[in-house]
Order: sequence, then structure tokens, then C-alpha cells
Amino acid sequence: MKLNERWKDRSVRNSATKFILKRIPILSWLPKYNTEKMMSDAIAGITVGLTVMPQALAYATLAGLEPQYGLYSAFMGAIVYVFLGSCKEITIGPTALMALMTHQYVQGRSVDFAILLAFLTGCLQLLMACLRLGVLIDFISVPVTVGFTSATSVIIAVSQLKGLLGLKVSSSGFLDTIIKVITHIGDTRVWDAGMSFSCITILLILRKLKDIKLCKEGQKPTERQKTLMKVMWLISTARNAIIVIACSAVAYKLETSGSGSPFILTGPVKSGLPSFSFPPFSTQVNNSTVSFIEMCGELGYGIFLVPIIGVLGNVAIAKAFASGDNIDATQELITLGVCNILGSCASAMPVTGSFSRSAVNHASGVKTPMGGLYTGILILLALSLLTPYFYFIPKASLAAVIICAVIFMIEYEVVKPMWRSSRKDLIPTFVTFVLCLIIGVEYGILAGVGINLIFLLYPSARPIINVEKCVTVSGAEYLLVTPGNSLYFPAVDFIKQSVDRAGRKEGSSQLPVVVDCRYVLGADFTAAKGIAALINEYNNRKQGLYFYNPRCDVVSVLRGACGENFQYVSTHEELSYLLYTSPDQSRQLLEVTRENSTQPLTMNNSKLIHRVSSTHELSEVTTTLLQHAAAS
Amino acid sequence: MKLNERWKDRSVRNSATKFILKRIPILSWLPKYNTEKMMSDAIAGITVGLTVMPQALAYATLAGLEPQYGLYSAFMGAIVYVFLGSCKEITIGPTALMALMTHQYVQGRSVDFAILLAFLTGCLQLLMACLRLGVLIDFISVPVTVGFTSATSVIIAVSQLKGLLGLKVSSSGFLDTIIKVITHIGDTRVWDAGMSFSCITILLILRKLKDIKLCKEGQKPTERQKTLMKVMWLISTARNAIIVIACSAVAYKLETSGSGSPFILTGPVKSGLPSFSFPPFSTQVNNSTVSFIEMCGELGYGIFLVPIIGVLGNVAIAKAFASGDNIDATQELITLGVCNILGSCASAMPVTGSFSRSAVNHASGVKTPMGGLYTGILILLALSLLTPYFYFIPKASLAAVIICAVIFMIEYEVVKPMWRSSRKDLIPTFVTFVLCLIIGVEYGILAGVGINLIFLLYPSARPIINVEKCVTVSGAEYLLVTPGNSLYFPAVDFIKQSVDRAGRKEGSSQLPVVVDCRYVLGADFTAAKGIAALINEYNNRKQGLYFYNPRCDVVSVLRGACGENFQYVSTHEELSYLLYTSPDQSRQLLEVTRENSTQPLTMNNSKLIHRVSSTHELSEVTTTLLQHAAAS
Repeated sequence: MKLNERWKDRSVRNSATKFILKRIPILSWLPKYNTEKMMSDAIAGITVGLTVMPQALAYATLAGLEPQYGLYSAFMGAIVYVFLGSCKEITIGPTALMALMTHQYVQGRSVDFAILLAFLTGCLQLLMACLRLGVLIDFISVPVTVGFTSATSVIIAVSQLKGLLGLKVSSSGFLDTIIKVITHIGDTRVWDAGMSFSCITILLILRKLKDIKLCKEGQKPTERQKTLMKVMWLISTARNAIIVIACSAVAYKLETSGSGSPFILTGPVKSGLPSFSFPPFSTQVNNSTVSFIEMCGELGYGIFLVPIIGVLGNVAIAKAFASGDNIDATQELITLGVCNILGSCASAMPVTGSFSRSAVNHASGVKTPMGGLYTGILILLALSLLTPYFYFIPKASLAAVIICAVIFMIEYEVVKPMWRSSRKDLIPTFVTFVLCLIIGVEYGILAGVGINLIFLLYPSARPIINVEKCVTVSGAEYLLVTPGNSLYFPAVDFIKQSVDRAGRKEGSSQLPVVVDCRYVLGADFTAAKGIAALINEYNNRKQGLYFYNPRCDVVSVLRGACGENFQYVSTHEELSYLLYTSPDQSRQLLEVTRENSTQPLTMNNSKLIHRVSSTHELSEVTTTLLQHAAAS
Repeated sequence: MKLNERWKDRSVRNSATKFILKRIPILSWLPKYNTEKMMSDAIAGITVGLTVMPQALAYATLAGLEPQYGLYSAFMGAIVYVFLGSCKEITIGPTALMALMTHQYVQGRSVDFAILLAFLTGCLQLLMACLRLGVLIDFISVPVTVGFTSATSVIIAVSQLKGLLGLKVSSSGFLDTIIKVITHIGDTRVWDAGMSFSCITILLILRKLKDIKLCKEGQKPTERQKTLMKVMWLISTARNAIIVIACSAVAYKLETSGSGSPFILTGPVKSGLPSFSFPPFSTQVNNSTVSFIEMCGELGYGIFLVPIIGVLGNVAIAKAFASGDNIDATQELITLGVCNILGSCASAMPVTGSFSRSAVNHASGVKTPMGGLYTGILILLALSLLTPYFYFIPKASLAAVIICAVIFMIEYEVVKPMWRSSRKDLIPTFVTFVLCLIIGVEYGILAGVGINLIFLLYPSARPIINVEKCVTVSGAEYLLVTPGNSLYFPAVDFIKQSVDRAGRKEGSSQLPVVVDCRYVLGADFTAAKGIAALINEYNNRKQGLYFYNPRCDVVSVLRGACGENFQYVSTHEELSYLLYTSPDQSRQLLEVTRENSTQPLTMNNSKLIHRVSSTHELSEVTTTLLQHAAAS
């Protein structure tokens, strides 16, 4: 323990050590690991393992691959996350969304394409981490995430309808599947449909089981009640595994009874561990070799979209579970990258964090990312010992498990607080949802992000501009114009027009205009050019235009384009002196004060010479000057 | 005059009339038109007419069309702009850029495609005007415009190298042309090259002619000197027309002398006015009919890019000449749309404002958009009378004219002020310039705009956050956190982390945190959710988190997601009271004050009951309460 503390102490001093701790989070928590945590992690890890096995088989089928590839994809992510993961609940592995996207880009082609896609996904995620593109994740807002998650849930649920009813039709996409299912509804196989609906009913009941209170509110449960509640919790949490095992047992019984199983079964799953080798950089299609470049060409946009969607889903899940803890997007990118690259060496398809299994992990009381180790070991055991039994898993039961997992991910309940808080945000939500369903997940996300960006950019282009007539202490009237945003290129014409219109309005054409820069946090060259044109115009019609209290960096940008024509004041006293005297006089004064602004400064007016050493003194002197001027 | 004034008077009252005046600018300036203005406009219009004739022939060739189509394209825009144009210098007609883009999307196909492209360009520009997409123009910054203009100038200059040297090779694109010219440099035709280089030399000398001062500085020129200077100015301004006429005369002489001209000539130009009819909605290619849809399919992205690039160029030119006057992007969109639609009925290719001719127009002292009428009439006259002579225009002379026009559009001199003002802006400039040259004008613009948007969005994602330790008048310490931007989704995690880190720092963990909302001009649902999580966290560790002086709309967004957990104060007195008392007490107080904030309000503290009727009184009362609390 002492060593650990000393290590921590040193780490504060040593930023390199800090960096390593940040990038390999296991170093932070492993020294504090104890038996209690180990027990919790083991229970959670094994429960997740029992959930992932049927899911992995189903998702591999969803991706158009043989079922064992789902299991190959499940163990590497779980184990890598132990070392690199920063969020204890997350379990990496095959997910419905990744399977769906793999299917979209690999469809019909050999499994080598899926494995190469996983490798390229990992490489791109590492590259994104190196380029610090984690910041991009911040541009995916809650409304877009909600629309995307809900649409994905609906798509996955619909994709399972075929398995649910035992229909043997091929379809692609959300709308096509709905149409195919409706037109082929007559071909429904009674045994499959019966099993799946029974499974769904039981799953929904078991899901509620853990919420049942055996004793009244406030009462302390007896020892027996406590045990019963623990058993109920265990059954409820392991419900997916229980259903799959029970259904497989029924199918096994019927199959071996001689008449053959009336269900559509998973079929043979290849036994044994996958070989650990480099991913396939070329492959054979119809006896001709397809090169790496050609394979990349066939994967197309998938190479960019799969990694982005993967990290998006992962960070969204991490955000959901972190509940306040900060998610380091760069760290998640690195972890996902390593998971995918190492996974591809073990014949895995692209993987990311799974929402449903992370929820199971959380509900099972996981304490550290170590849970993944137990999950990984369980899957490896299953691959070497249990594969013969996978043959008998009815597809209908897998469909039921998946549907029951995703229907609770449709986030309809977020609409109400969104309506209360910011109605505008419902637009990206619904656009993302509808487009994800109709034209594809990736376009839906892009459209949602696009709409969000338009909302974000609009105030930059059309800021609120406040105009009011003010009077200085010396009685000089002026127009105070306050732009509600920084001076960047989209707003420059609008601000220019507004300032110009304010200055030209009837009754104001003689008044000097003062631009209050309180909200101007930055400026660029386009804006500076625009301001230069505006200043020229005001100079031409001999109207004063001054900037009140701009920041240093804004001054340097504007000076760069406008030169000495750009006049600004920093205090109200300066302003009132400026508005009282003639423009030429005041400019002289301002330049003198400014040139010496870091050292004691001298103000040279035609009559008075003062030496001041602070801005406070300066404002006192200007006030005196004003009184002088007013008296004379 | 009286009628005119009455008309103006009424227009102020009637907003419909105001709208008409805005949309048909000729109604504003025509009543004030007089003989003096007419003379200036006639001189400028005719000069522009003489410039446009050789240019139109050259640009039609550049677009891959027969030369007469350049003239067809030149007159309609010039005349329409008289009625709808808002910037007196601009002349609409064929331009090198539009010709280049037309070539790119029409290449090799019949002229019908170019005419249909002009029609569709006009329709899309009108549609953009209806959708008020003029705001999009604001997103094209000066750096992008500079990069684009300079690259276009280089591309046009290079595209003229073939004509300059008399090479007969076909090439497409900037790099291809350079390579082709270098590899075929041996095929240079001496006569053509000789003529073009002589033309360039003479053009450059004539360009300087109008700047020569005949009398010394300060001296008044004599009558003879004045006349001479006027003649020199005229020669200098009409240099393009003079060169083309002179070269054609030489070629005519050589051609008719029997041995034939040694120059490559323009060849036959179809005489007569174009027929005025609907644009071709279907066409014949190789004896088979191509339908409207198929034609659109072949034009591809051009349908969207040509109108956008057209209006971009036009607004950029308008901005350059307006020098402070405000450009109404919607009005320019309408005008360009009408020009293109009516133009397409007269067999024109896509048109937009021409930079070089607008410069000629400006230099020739144009007073109103009426100048376009003279230009238009001159071109119509030329079409009916002069076409036989166009045959003899040597291509080398046209190439010389174009090169001498564009080399002065390369804006290298803007780099220096940009460096002085905002160095960062050089990045979009150079990226736009290089990408325009290498992969195409449209991608260059897109990349430049993209980089600019990233610059614009970065402060939204990573705002400056200021943290300082402060003390209230009552002596309570607190951490003041000031985010330098609004609470929108890209920044929420960053702001959350910063506030959280500030609150957890050693020595600060007991201090309440106050978020100063002075720069928070808006908030969205994602931000509100993030703030809600932050508030929960602070509540969990019993640390205070308050928001100082947020705007009403920000309060309503945050309240919508956080509920009553969201606590804010509006004055320093409220804040110091809040930080002095326990959180529960102060929350009560705040709620009481807030509920009644529009009417006289009662503050109910355990000891004191006060009735106040203004915020000023309220702050006085809180101060008293504080003193009481401090004393007791």
C-alpha cells in the first residue's frame, strides 16, 4: 500500500507517468484491487458472458457471417478493455449496429472482408486518436444520439421479425424488410412463431422479477426473503441465457426424438479457438485473387463510417453510464482501435461497446473493468467445449432475446423534457430518427449533425445587435451599439449593416457611434476588412466611430487591417473625453496614452501635461481634463 | 421633381412600395436620371461593349462552343441588370470562370446542354432567393474568396497558353494543360507566338498609359494637355478593343493577299440575332433523342455548382466595388436568376458578373446601371452587322487580351495585411488556392469554407474558461468560473470538466462554485442535460453550485432539464446572502423573491419580514439581512 502511495506521489510530479496512467487505466485501479471487488466482477463478468454468447451467435448471423465469428469477436474486446478501458460498465464485442453495418458493406462477400474491415476500423480509430479527433465526438449532441439510438433499436427489432416468424426470405434495409414480412406473413411457421412469442412473454416477465419487493416498504426482509430476492435477481439478470438454454434443450429433445426439430436451428458452429494470425490483406473470390486495394474499394465508405459509428456508439454508452464522470474520447478511441486490430488477428468482425450488455454489467454490480476478463475466459471455454450444443439453439429464441433487449432502447421518454427545455432540439431528433429509418443510419447522423451545426452557426451569422442612445457624464450624446457575438466572417456584413443603419437613422446621423465589444471574444481577417470599410465610410461622412473596451487580440486583428483609423477606448472617462473633444485632438491623446500604456504615461494636450502611473490615475486625469474643458 | 418626391414620401409609408423599390432598383434611380449621367453611362457602356466583344468570343471558345454563343450570352445580362441590378459597376455576361465550368460539365456535348445549364442555373438562383439562402454567401470569407480568385486567374492564364503559342492540342484541367504545353513546346507556331507576345507587351504599356501625368504635380494642365490626357485615357481604356481590331486588320490583310494568314483565326461566326425561344428541354445526340431527365443526369453536379459559383463570383465582385455600400445577396440572386433564365431563351450559356469588365466600367466612370443598356445595344448591332469581320480575329490576340486581364486578379498583395491582422486566415487562403489548382475550383471552395467553419466552431467546442477565487462582501469565499461562450452541445463536456476540475482542486473542494453567465447568450438541450448531471454531482458531494446572472431564455432551457435543482442569482447581494446562509434557507429566500419578482415582494426569513417594491430595494434589504446575520 505504501509503495502504491509513493508511486502516486511521484506520478503527480512526473507528467510522463501521469500520461501513462491516463492511457493505461489498469495501472491506476489494479493496486487497489481486493477480494471483494473480485467477487463482484466475477459475478458480473460471468453474467455478461452468458448474455453475450447467444447475442454473438445472433449478431454474426445478422452480419451475414457464420455464427462462430460472433464468438471470435466477443472475447478479444472484453479482455483488451480490462487493460485500456476507462469506464467499468462497458463491454466491448459484437453489437447489432456493428453487425448491421458490417452486413451493409460486406454483404455476400467472404468473411475476409469483415475481418479486414475490423482491422481498418481499428487503424482509423487509432489514427483519429493520434490526430486528437476525439473533439469531433462533442459535435454529436444528445438529440442526434437519441434519434440515432431509437432508430437503430427499431431497425434491429424489425430485422428480427423474420426470425421471429420463421420466415425464409432475404431482405435488405428497414422498409424492404417490413414489406417482405407483410407480403410473406402467410408463410409464418407456427412452431417458430409460438416459441418466439412465448420467449418474449417470459423474458418480459423475468425482466420485472428483480423489481418485486417481497416485504413491505420500511420493513426489514427476513433471511429467507433475502435469499429468495437474490435468486430472483439472478434469474432476472441471467434471463437471456436461461431462455436460450431452455429452448435449445427443447429443440435437442425434439431433434433427437427421431421426428426432427420443427424449429429453424442455428446449425453447425465450428468448434475450437480461431487461429491467431495477421488479418487477410488479400482474398480469393471465385478462384481469382482480390488485392488489398480492391478489397478496400469494395468496402467503400464503410472504412470511414464503421469506425466513426463505432466510437460514437461507444462514447454514447460511456456517457450514459459515467453519470457525471468525464469520458476521455481519445482514450476510448485508442481502446477501440486496439480491440479492433487485435480482434481482426483473431478473425473478429468490427466491435464496439454493447449497450445491452453494458446495462447487464451495470445491473450485475460490476466494480472494475476486470469483469471483462471473466467474460473473455468464459467465451474461450465455450468455444472449445460448448460448440456442439450451439447447433440446437432455435433462431426464434435468439430473435426474441434481441427484440427484448432493443425495445427498451427506444428513447421516447426524452421528448417531454426536451419539449420543456428546448423545443428547437426536437428537430434534429426527429430528422435523425426518420432519416436513419428511411435512407440509412449514416445519413441520418450526418443530417442531424448538419442541422445542429446550422443552429450553432446561426447566431454567428445573425447575432443579436442592441442599439441605444446614451449620454456621457459630460453630456455628449452617442449611439451605443452592442453586437451579441464575436466578429467572425459570417456576421461581418450583418454587423456592418446594423451599425451603418443605426448611424444613419433619422435624428442619429450627427451622433457618434460607439461599438461596445463586451461580447466580442475574437475577430478574423474578413471581419477586420469589413470594419475597415465601415470606418472609412464614417470618416467620409465625418461621423465618429469608436470601439469600447475591445480585447487585446481583437485590437491587434483590427489594427492589422484598419491601421491607425481604428480607434478604441478602454474606460468611460476616455470615452467621454473623446466624445467631448474634436476627433483629431482626442486621437492624439489616445495615441499618447496607448503608446506608453505599460509604463508611466504622459498625456499631451494642447494645454495640460500630466504624468500618470496607473489606469486609475489616468481616468482621474481625464475627468479633470473634461471639467477643465467644460469650464473653459 | 415634385411628383418624384411625393412618390418617395408615399413609399416610406407604404412598405409594399418599399419592397418593390428594393426589388426593382431602377425605380429608385431613374426619376433622378439626367443628361450628365447619360453621357457618362454611354461612354462607359460603349467601352465595356468593345471589351466584351473579343472576350465573349474567347470565352465561348473556352467553353467549347461556337464563338457567336459568347455574344448571345453577352447582351441579355447587360440589359436585365439595368432594371434589377443594385451595383452600378457590375456588368453581367460570359466570364472565364463560367466558361470554364460550362466546359467542365458540357464538354464535348452539344450547345443545347450549355443553354439548358443556363436555364437551370437561373431557376436554382431564383429558388435560392426564395429560400433566403443569401445568408449562405456570408459563409464565404475573404480568405476563401482571395484563394479562389487567385487560383481562377492562374487557371485561366494557363488555359490561354495554348492559344498564346498556337499549339493545337486538346487538354483538360490545370495540370494537364501545363504538361501538354511543356511536352508540345516544340510545336510552337512562330507567327502566333510573335503576335501574342507583341500584343501582351502593347497591352501592358497601354494599361500604364492612363496613369502618365503630362504636367508636374500641383500645376494646372493646359487645354492641350487636358485633351491629350483624355485621348490617352480613352486609348488605355479601350486597349482590348484596339488590339483585337488591329490584329484582325493585319490578319485580314495577310489572308486576302493571297498567301493565306499565318495565324490561327477565330473562323466563321454565325451572323444574325439568336432566335428567342424556350430553352431546349430535349436534344438530339447521334440521331437519338435525349430527354430532359437524361440531360440533367449528364450535367450532374454542375446544376448545383454553377449557380452557386456564379452568385459567389458576382457577390464577391459587388463587394469589391461597393466599398461600404451594403450588398443585398437576395437581390443579386434574383437578378442573376432572371439574367440566366432570359439568357437561356436567347441561346446563352450561364452568365454572371465579370470582374474585368466591371473594372473597365468603373474606370470609365459609370454613374448608374444604365450603362448596361448601351453595352447591350452595341452587342446587338455587332451581331447583325460585324460578324463577317469576326472571322479574321487571330486567336493569339484573344489569348493575349484574356491573360492581360486575369494576371492582375492574382491577389498576392493581400497576404501582407492578412499576416499582420490574423495569420490563421492564411491557412484557408492557401488551402483554397492549392486545391482549386490541383483538384478543382469547387472542391477548393468547399475545403476553404470547411476550414473556416472549423475555425468558427472551435471556440464553441473549446471556449476559454476563466477560474478565480473571489470573496463576497460578507467575507464568504467562492470560486468564480466564467465560460467564454454560450452553452451549446459541443462545449458542454468541456465546460462540465472545467467546472468540475475547478471545484475539486486541492484547497477548493469546500468552496461553492459560481458560474458567471455573462457570455452565455444561449443554451440547448444537450448542454442542459450536462449541467443537470453536474448539479447532481455537486449536490452529491454537498458542494454549492450557483449560476450568476443568466439570461431569461437560458434559465428556461436549464430549468426544463434540471428542474428546481438549478439555482441562480441575479445580483451580488443575492449571491453574498446565498453563500452566507445554508443552502436550504437561501433556496427558500430565492424562491420567494423570484415568485413575486414582478410585483411588490415579501422576503420571509426566520426573523425578518420585509416588503420591497424594486430590485434596488431588494438588494438593500439583502444587505441589511446580511449585516443582521453577521452581527448575530
